[in-house]
Amino acid sequence: MLENLKLQVYKASLKLQEQGLVIFTWGNVSAIDRKSGLVVIKPTGISYDEMVPGDMVVVDLNGKVQSGDLKPSSDTHTHLVLYQNFPEIGSIVHSHSEYASCWAQAGLGIPPLGISHANFFNGEIPCTLPLSAQQLEGDLETETGKAIVETFRAGKIDPARIPGILVYGHGPFCWGKSVQNAFDHTVAIEKIARMAYRTRQLNPVQPVGKGFLDRYFLE
Amino acid sequence: MLENLKLQVYKASLKLQEQGLVIFTWGNVSAIDRKSGLVVIKPTGISYDEMVPGDMVVVDLNGKVQSGDLKPSSDTHTHLVLYQNFPEIGSIVHSHSEYASCWAQAGLGIPPLGISHANFFNGEIPCTLPLSAQQLEGDLETETGKAIVETFRAGKIDPARIPGILVYGHGPFCWGKSVQNAFDHTVAIEKIARMAYRTRQLNPVQPVGKGFLDRYFLE
Amino acid sequence: MLENLKLQVYKASLKLQEQGLVIFTWGNVSAIDRKSGLVVIKPTGISYDEMVPGDMVVVDLNGKVQSGDLKPSSDTHTHLVLYQNFPEIGSIVHSHSEYASCWAQAGLGIPPLGISHANFFNGEIPCTLPLSAQQLEGDLETETGKAIVETFRAGKIDPARIPGILVYGHGPFCWGKSVQNAFDHTVAIEKIARMAYRTRQLNPVQPVGKGFLDRYFLE
Amino acid sequence: MLENLKLQVYKASLKLQEQGLVIFTWGNVSAIDRKSGLVVIKPTGISYDEMVPGDMVVVDLNGKVQSGDLKPSSDTHTHLVLYQNFPEIGSIVHSHSEYASCWAQAGLGIPPLGISHANFFNGEIPCTLPLSAQQLEGDLETETGKAIVETFRAGKIDPARIPGILVYGHGPFCWGKSVQNAFDHTVAIEKIARMAYRTRQLNPVQPVGKGFLDRYFLE
Repeated sequence: MLENLKLQVYKASLKLQEQGLVIFTWGNVSAIDRKSGLVVIKPTGISYDEMVPGDMVVVDLNGKVQSGDLKPSSDTHTHLVLYQNFPEIGSIVHSHSEYASCWAQAGLGIPPLGISHANFFNGEIPCTLPLSAQQLEGDLETETGKAIVETFRAGKIDPARIPGILVYGHGPFCWGKSVQNAFDHTVAIEKIARMAYRTRQLNPVQPVGKGFLDRYFLE
Repeated sequence: MLENLKLQVYKASLKLQEQGLVIFTWGNVSAIDRKSGLVVIKPTGISYDEMVPGDMVVVDLNGKVQSGDLKPSSDTHTHLVLYQNFPEIGSIVHSHSEYASCWAQAGLGIPPLGISHANFFNGEIPCTLPLSAQQLEGDLETETGKAIVETFRAGKIDPARIPGILVYGHGPFCWGKSVQNAFDHTVAIEKIARMAYRTRQLNPVQPVGKGFLDRYFLE
Repeated sequence: MLENLKLQVYKASLKLQEQGLVIFTWGNVSAIDRKSGLVVIKPTGISYDEMVPGDMVVVDLNGKVQSGDLKPSSDTHTHLVLYQNFPEIGSIVHSHSEYASCWAQAGLGIPPLGISHANFFNGEIPCTLPLSAQQLEGDLETETGKAIVETFRAGKIDPARIPGILVYGHGPFCWGKSVQNAFDHTVAIEKIARMAYRTRQLNPVQPVGKGFLDRYFLE
Repeated sequence: MLENLKLQVYKASLKLQEQGLVIFTWGNVSAIDRKSGLVVIKPTGISYDEMVPGDMVVVDLNGKVQSGDLKPSSDTHTHLVLYQNFPEIGSIVHSHSEYASCWAQAGLGIPPLGISHANFFNGEIPCTLPLSAQQLEGDLETETGKAIVETFRAGKIDPARIPGILVYGHGPFCWGKSVQNAFDHTVAIEKIARMAYRTRQLNPVQPVGKGFLDRYFLE
């Protein structure tokens, strides 16, 4: 069942570790089969060394497990809220990659400061608002998903042109049409976060303008 | 005698080096067998290349060598003071990991700024006060242990919820129920120190609150 | 046709990746055969894993493909403008290496602060002005090349003594007599950019003077 | 002739590269046989890949080549001035390691901020004054050596207790009784430079005092 998607999710999970984007359990990958509405996601409670492609868990959009012996990632409900609200996306990657998470901890979006940013993100990468005391008492993962969706709605941001976000005090969630796309955006957001951090240390430079952004965006 | 614990201490010692958390002799690992009250600790005066599991030294809680041909780590008495005062801990890892040591050199505790911190540490990771001129003239390792214990007592901090500390002008000591726990906290404190350092450069952000901390703490 | 130059361009392209100077497609290498006026350049639309030396594309100075089944790098026209205007150079390397690109995003030239800089660059490494709205609407790569040439003309800078530049909001272009030279300058500019960044954080130090620069320049 | 010393100098030269302390020709290692007054030093003009232990050059204290087919390192005369003036040292290592060189470019000594520093250096690691216009016109390497010696003399600093220095606008020179010692001090100075840089970013903390320094110095 969805063996090819399982293999892609499995491989991307390993690559996150290998490239230093994830330590501990601070990351997960999922992909959706839009025809069946089923989502393949990394399991929780198993080490990367032991994990095999067949361990990837299949859940429906309500989070009900359809196949797999292990429990789905604890962040599953954040992924599901995004799949429900962003119909054009096919895969999601979450990490606590270091510099992107620093911007998230600082509560700041990443301003577009050059071509490396503009190639992948057509404007500022936003940061969600902090969860309220009430939201912290609810289902954390669902609330996190809702906060992401709300940030895009309130800012009238197109998730196809800004394929990622920073969750306040947490880290980045990135997405794309394919697992490869979502993974590339995860690599890019960390690199961009590093560069924006250092650029700001050198000079309080203004973000690049809309003409620049549109000209260098790789659709 | 305590062969399994020796193997764990040995392996963690090597991993500290491999992961870049220790250079020179700036680190050590120990574990306690609570039934017998015996402590297994890395020896001093032998290179990592030559060291074998059987070289780990066994001492009692007063520091008297019970088995082993080599001398125990020069930091042994710091470890012993912690085992005596924190009865719930089973292992201690000390390092001079770079960013955690920078906070220690700056004399600052690491404020909790996000989930990565909150998962492992339920509040600020404290920094001890500088040793006084009188303490510097005493047994340095015992005084260091006492300074750690005093910081936790004075601040009414639970070592099970804040499983590590920065020693002023020195570096981190972390602990846990098992060697794996103590090692994970050592990896985490360095990552958290890196992230807090950069977050503060971006923005003089407030620490997250108690509701946030409690919600994300992984017990 | 130009097999030796193809091999050099191919090898340098791989080394850029291996040394972490390029991720994604953010880099390219070319070399010119001055006798024939033909330029060998890395192709676009093929992964580093699949690429073989024979895939390097040969174009004339107007950008017309002379041999090769693949399309030349999207930055080809920037390279060609440089070959046309800087007759003494034999090879060009472009990257988005992290620290050099941060200076480019900050819109600042890299000031000469010591011997490491002076060995390779006989003064400040300049940064181009931002492209105007009008230039952004033209052929981007040609406009980028013109902006580089204009910076050297306006500043009366000798491209043999300052073998590289930062393109505003983009990254470094470096050159040299040979592929090895251009590659070395790319490694050097990133190292110098790292050091100047940190030196400025420590102290708002003045650049070194002309006597110092001339004494340490390795011609 | 001095085969064992050649092997040590050769191996340390390779380790400098492997550990990322040297790129290009920005580093060299030497050792002296005090009985004969002969110095073994890395040759210039040969790549690390091709170099073999027998390529190490032997010179006398005036710089006259005693054995070896290659030219001695271009920094030879700096080494010789140090051997002449610091009779207790047996080996010298020079590098442009990144953070130590940033302090050198900033013209600042590295203040002692903790135990990692105090273990190896019994106080601030000084930085030489800039070479004057006149000195820049003389023999650069001899002038550099003299500037180092003058800094120690003027400050009444004991080279056995501060086994290294920063040369203004250049990088560190470290020494020790043995090649291993000098190499360790080179690794230590870079680590200390990294930590002092970051500590200062966190907090404008005072250096540790003499009591602290003496207590933690490993003689």
